[in-house]
Amino acid sequence: PVTKLPKVGTTIFTTMSALAAKHQAVNLGQGFPDFDVPALLVDALARAMRAGQNQYAMMTGAPALRAAIAQKTEDCYGYRPDPDTEITVTSGASEAILNAVLAVVRAGEEVIVLDPCYDCYEPAIDMAGAKAVHVPLDASSFAPDWERVRAAITPKTRLLMINSPHNPSGAMLSADDMNEVAAIVQEHGLYLLSDEVYEHIVFDGARHESALRYPALRDRTFVISSFGKTYHCTGWKVGYCVAPPALSVEFRKVHQYNTFCTFHPAQLAFAEMIEKAPEHHRELGHFYQEKRDAFQAQLAETRLKALPVPGGYFQLVDYSDVSDLDDRAFSEWLTIEKGVTGIPLSPFYETPPVGQRLLRLCFAKNPETVAAAMARLKTL
Amino acid sequence: PVTKLPKVGTTIFTTMSALAAKHQAVNLGQGFPDFDVPALLVDALARAMRAGQNQYAMMTGAPALRAAIAQKTEDCYGYRPDPDTEITVTSGASEAILNAVLAVVRAGEEVIVLDPCYDCYEPAIDMAGAKAVHVPLDASSFAPDWERVRAAITPKTRLLMINSPHNPSGAMLSADDMNEVAAIVQEHGLYLLSDEVYEHIVFDGARHESALRYPALRDRTFVISSFGKTYHCTGWKVGYCVAPPALSVEFRKVHQYNTFCTFHPAQLAFAEMIEKAPEHHRELGHFYQEKRDAFQAQLAETRLKALPVPGGYFQLVDYSDVSDLDDRAFSEWLTIEKGVTGIPLSPFYETPPVGQRLLRLCFAKNPETVAAAMARLKTL
Ligand SMILES: CSCCC(=O)C(=O)O
Ligand SMILES: CSCCC(=O)C(=O)O
Repeated sequence: PVTKLPKVGTTIFTTMSALAAKHQAVNLGQGFPDFDVPALLVDALARAMRAGQNQYAMMTGAPALRAAIAQKTEDCYGYRPDPDTEITVTSGASEAILNAVLAVVRAGEEVIVLDPCYDCYEPAIDMAGAKAVHVPLDASSFAPDWERVRAAITPKTRLLMINSPHNPSGAMLSADDMNEVAAIVQEHGLYLLSDEVYEHIVFDGARHESALRYPALRDRTFVISSFGKTYHCTGWKVGYCVAPPALSVEFRKVHQYNTFCTFHPAQLAFAEMIEKAPEHHRELGHFYQEKRDAFQAQLAETRLKALPVPGGYFQLVDYSDVSDLDDRAFSEWLTIEKGVTGIPLSPFYETPPVGQRLLRLCFAKNPETVAAAMARLKTL
Repeated sequence: PVTKLPKVGTTIFTTMSALAAKHQAVNLGQGFPDFDVPALLVDALARAMRAGQNQYAMMTGAPALRAAIAQKTEDCYGYRPDPDTEITVTSGASEAILNAVLAVVRAGEEVIVLDPCYDCYEPAIDMAGAKAVHVPLDASSFAPDWERVRAAITPKTRLLMINSPHNPSGAMLSADDMNEVAAIVQEHGLYLLSDEVYEHIVFDGARHESALRYPALRDRTFVISSFGKTYHCTGWKVGYCVAPPALSVEFRKVHQYNTFCTFHPAQLAFAEMIEKAPEHHRELGHFYQEKRDAFQAQLAETRLKALPVPGGYFQLVDYSDVSDLDDRAFSEWLTIEKGVTGIPLSPFYETPPVGQRLLRLCFAKNPETVAAAMARLKTL
């Protein structure tokens, strides 16, 4: 009788991590690094606690952290958001996504998402009483088809959600894509939510096309990012939203009555880290490119076929030479029988492409973890 | 055009803290302690970080922390919730309150709140598209009138929200009250949200009547608490919800797509603290009773009249001998002209009682802070 959200089950990440633990599989499923958090960050956090910075932070975020985010954003994208009116710190990107949707989407309205997409998008839309309209990305390149996006717009459409670098595929939106996005949202008076949590993990000299680079987008976009992927601390759950003042006002109405503020000592630690060690985020692409290359070199010795990975820390593999099981069944089989856990792609879709045989593997792992997984994958 | 939540402004706590900072007032407004966090807790957190516990915690909460909460709940209230199916860790009590409301309240339904009430209740109800129905507590004792509550119930009523010890008044619900609550929610098939964040701050030998003591309530109640008030770390934002399995399933549907999980090293630190130093929460009532008594003794030398404080860390004072300003104007005047900040009560009401002249002062402060405030209040 109480089921208000009947479509919501347990996330695929929780399910697969539990299965991995049960079968002592090497867990390349749920996306988390096994690298050490930079010592500077850990030390700064401990220092902040010991200095007594343990009470509520400002609802919008600790001033030092908002200033650091403004600086980092300017360095990276040439636009300096106003820390007081345009930046809000949240308990991870996922809180920020829910806040943004609850802030501007009303019951009965529609939100366009591009499939496959991260699994918290649709439940956020559900909680606003609105409807997710799913537009598929290209089944092999994961590129958006903007004509299909245009065709999905109705008078009820309020928000478009994009994600680059893209989870699960690693695909990146180009400058042309962003110009299309700008034209679409302006023409139809939509808001944009741009999920950029993998912003610093981009390869081969490519440029991350943050929505903040585009003046035509800035006045209608929630840019959402987080520190978990950048600083190897997905369990710290500190994220943020950059939005123009009018949208930040609305965003903060939700945030202040959701978590209100976020673990204060970590906010001060991130401020210090960004200020003192900007090379960390600047060099993260190189760091991960090596990981990707090593991962792909070892995959070449298996019967799994690696798809290109322009950004992010996930590798899609085509397992059609190995098995004809569907992706959920294959990922269970691989965990139980071979001791390696990946994530099936179908939970990222409203309508998964028929016959798609792709699995997502996380390569944010130490060489030993990768070697252990590869030894098993070579037996496929 | 974007204002979806037109009633929501900036919280009175943020407003008054900003005014206090601007005028260098002693801030007894926003409720936060200025005591040190127990060293064991700080050390345990630093150790957890250094041991590499920096990736996602389980969505439901770190197992060690859920086990510790079960143990502490059993010790305190004689009921041991199942850590796997009945306990969910959240990013503070405020996230938990929003989750619970979004989980079971549908658009168009009604939720009964007892005025004055904490300022995040109504916005949570708004975000669910539902309506808050305000029933006043007694204007001087802050006791509920259950007949008025019964009279406010309609076929649309889905949830009743209670809070004991009560913010802002410190009033506590008695066993008789809880039996009334049980009768009401059973009779009308309502859910109950019991906000118990001040559970360990109770005075004069009184007993905290947790909803978890009442078998008739357990199968329909979200009991929400947090560690911020108990361990002097309001800025750590770790809370939890105890609810029966069927309600926890619904609660987790929202939580997993809101913050998903909470700062992991702190979860492990609280688990260790609860296990190794249960005397901390057991002795917290005594600790705060001394603070209350000292605060009241000094207030007796001012023209402010102290109301009784059965629990919590707030002291209501009647300032009618000092000023005839309304409470918002008085709290601004007191900040700007006298350098002491309190919180007016009217923001806690839909319809503030006419002519009420009460201010809320937080006494979770070191003797020096209290002395500085009292020196100023004596000049009134
Ligand atoms: C919050 S668990 C999911 C982590 C993640 O971002 C992913 O694996 O895609
Ligand atoms: C989240 S700021 C408000 C803190 C508090 O609980 C109070 O002052 O009542």
